[in-house]
Amino acid sequence: MSTLVQQLGKQAQVASRVLAKLTTQQKNEILMQAADALLEHCDEILEANAQDLERAKQNDMPKPLQDRLMLTKARVEAIAKGMQEVAQLEDPVGQFVKMEKRPNGLYIMQKRVPFGVIAVIYEARPNVTADVFALCFKSGNATILKGGKDAASSNLAIVNVLQQALRQAGLTEHAVQLLEDNSREASRELMRCHEYVDVLIPRGGAGLIRSVIETATVPVIETGTGNCHVFVDDTADLDMAASIIVNGKTQRVGVCNAVESLLVTPSVAKAVCQRLDQEFAQFPVKIHAEQELLEYFQQNPKFLATPEDWGTEYLDYEISIKVVDDLDEAIAHINRYNTRHSECIITQDFSNAEQFLDEVDAAAVYVNASTRFTDGHEFGLGAEIGISTQKLHARGPMGLQALTTTKFVIYGNGQVRP
Amino acid sequence: MSTLVQQLGKQAQVASRVLAKLTTQQKNEILMQAADALLEHCDEILEANAQDLERAKQNDMPKPLQDRLMLTKARVEAIAKGMQEVAQLEDPVGQFVKMEKRPNGLYIMQKRVPFGVIAVIYEARPNVTADVFALCFKSGNATILKGGKDAASSNLAIVNVLQQALRQAGLTEHAVQLLEDNSREASRELMRCHEYVDVLIPRGGAGLIRSVIETATVPVIETGTGNCHVFVDDTADLDMAASIIVNGKTQRVGVCNAVESLLVTPSVAKAVCQRLDQEFAQFPVKIHAEQELLEYFQQNPKFLATPEDWGTEYLDYEISIKVVDDLDEAIAHINRYNTRHSECIITQDFSNAEQFLDEVDAAAVYVNASTRFTDGHEFGLGAEIGISTQKLHARGPMGLQALTTTKFVIYGNGQVRP
Repeated sequence: MSTLVQQLGKQAQVASRVLAKLTTQQKNEILMQAADALLEHCDEILEANAQDLERAKQNDMPKPLQDRLMLTKARVEAIAKGMQEVAQLEDPVGQFVKMEKRPNGLYIMQKRVPFGVIAVIYEARPNVTADVFALCFKSGNATILKGGKDAASSNLAIVNVLQQALRQAGLTEHAVQLLEDNSREASRELMRCHEYVDVLIPRGGAGLIRSVIETATVPVIETGTGNCHVFVDDTADLDMAASIIVNGKTQRVGVCNAVESLLVTPSVAKAVCQRLDQEFAQFPVKIHAEQELLEYFQQNPKFLATPEDWGTEYLDYEISIKVVDDLDEAIAHINRYNTRHSECIITQDFSNAEQFLDEVDAAAVYVNASTRFTDGHEFGLGAEIGISTQKLHARGPMGLQALTTTKFVIYGNGQVRP
Repeated sequence: MSTLVQQLGKQAQVASRVLAKLTTQQKNEILMQAADALLEHCDEILEANAQDLERAKQNDMPKPLQDRLMLTKARVEAIAKGMQEVAQLEDPVGQFVKMEKRPNGLYIMQKRVPFGVIAVIYEARPNVTADVFALCFKSGNATILKGGKDAASSNLAIVNVLQQALRQAGLTEHAVQLLEDNSREASRELMRCHEYVDVLIPRGGAGLIRSVIETATVPVIETGTGNCHVFVDDTADLDMAASIIVNGKTQRVGVCNAVESLLVTPSVAKAVCQRLDQEFAQFPVKIHAEQELLEYFQQNPKFLATPEDWGTEYLDYEISIKVVDDLDEAIAHINRYNTRHSECIITQDFSNAEQFLDEVDAAAVYVNASTRFTDGHEFGLGAEIGISTQKLHARGPMGLQALTTTKFVIYGNGQVRP
């Protein structure tokens, strides 16, 4: 195994033992100082980002991706503000989950403690670098970051500033480390660094997530792919349906909680589609619909849906539309094609709502509200490090508590097992 | 991928959707009926077990392993009783973790739901077959079992009885399925059956756990290896120390919460060792100690400890003993060599106790009590499916709650994201 990854892992583990002992107050002060440092060194960060952008242009990176890569003074200020907000959040470390006196006099306490070392592999958004550090640090964890190579200079500049702030606070800079080797081999080694990494969170597209699941030996929290559906049943309020579908599809495309697929019952199919034909006209939404529905769409580009459409997360102005006979078929279709993220039924029928909420297998199930709400801020967690689409450990938006584990602490006075 | 594993996975997923909807009362009744069925069919189970034992003898299986493999009428009764006890436990499914009204009027509820499909790979103890089924069934999960090939006939007989009881209760027999293909390839496919298996729990020795971590793409909960230490500091009550060490080492060897290694400070080394020399004399305990300690042991077989001893989980009447200068060295040694299971300090010093409890990285940390208490029953969970030594999802003894995940359920009345 590479000396570099092993070395980062070992340093992170040593650092994690220091971080676990910091008080909430100490952590908050350091986060505020780190936020100030980002603002002070804004010019250096923007300079580094300009190098990344220059490379991106030379490589003909698509414009929307260039926009995600780009930092501005306002964006650096937003990153610093995010860090200050994390300082205000409640610290989960040390909270008691349970405390019990057993019949033999043992006191058994279960309390929240940091994981130790959290590794995060992500793609080309440099703001993630500071966001992830803030959440991991506040929850007492050392962080190993592996960013996308397109943002290499920006990430390095940000981590340098954070490390300098840590040193100035008298703390080890190994609390946050960037894996600068952008080779596949280095990624692979990080995913298999079972000795030092307690949990690995991949943040990115379906390809990254698949590769991590395929390769990792360290425990993983799968995040973020979202093939989200809205199902409109016979009893739905059609104004509400249109409003929720349009919001889910167009309020922001390219995010995991956006709507990708619409299911309608035969009796509402025509009304819903004609309504959407009007609503979607102001957006460049491509329609992928079953044959019988295509006639209802006059304004937007339309295509005959193929079986591949049902499993596609477009992350763009595109939507697939299908007729299902009834609720059971809707649930079966969703459970077959969804990515366990967010699913919604529009209905006025109580039993239908309850059955959908019970039987659809997803992190978040909605009745009569937009799937766009699946988000740490919207759910009241204050911030999020990602949205888990697996069932182990955390499911749905993950806040600070998801970055902790628990430890049983047992106080005895000589008890032995009979 | 093998048709067989895929088929079991698919059937389990379909069954899991039925199980998720059962009421607690329905589940309890079926568990009681399954327990009765095991008693009724005791003869068939013992007959199958006799075949396994016959094979084991022909293959010269060591006697202690033969004993673990053997079923008797009393043991089948104990298995049935265990199942009845699980019926009495509180059902975690449907419990609310959180319910909140958001400023926009959304009601966001987080509630416990079954995982869906749980796969368990285990070694040659046929009682595990029924125990695992009971816990997974009570928590609303479908189970895929992969037992050791040495217990193949016993496991099949038990699963046949359970499936018959399920059918008689009008339920799908796919609620519990045995993977009868004992090849490595079938195991490997089960570990990589990401499409249908929600979590995989390996129960067995270090070799099995390593192989699962190396191979699995499904989320895993690591269980059970325990290189557990007792550290005796300068201030310890030496009667208490001796009693806890002897209990930890000899009350039951071959279990993960047994003591494998003893650390002593220089000032108590002689007294502790001489005391243990007396106490251990009645047991066949082999001593692996550092040079300076060997002279204190007159009665038991003794060996000069090698570096390998510090990392060895003997699972037998053997113990390694080392002198450490102080608490810091003890903590560093433990964090280097332990398996994150259970660790104990014997002390009368408050600060030493707190530092040890804080800084030792393990699922359960003890002051002045035997590590043998790390157990679902002893911790008041009622039963356990294993002891997690990882930090993701569950840590320490895992009861029914560890076999559930959560789901966000959101009630709206038309809310969209601004």
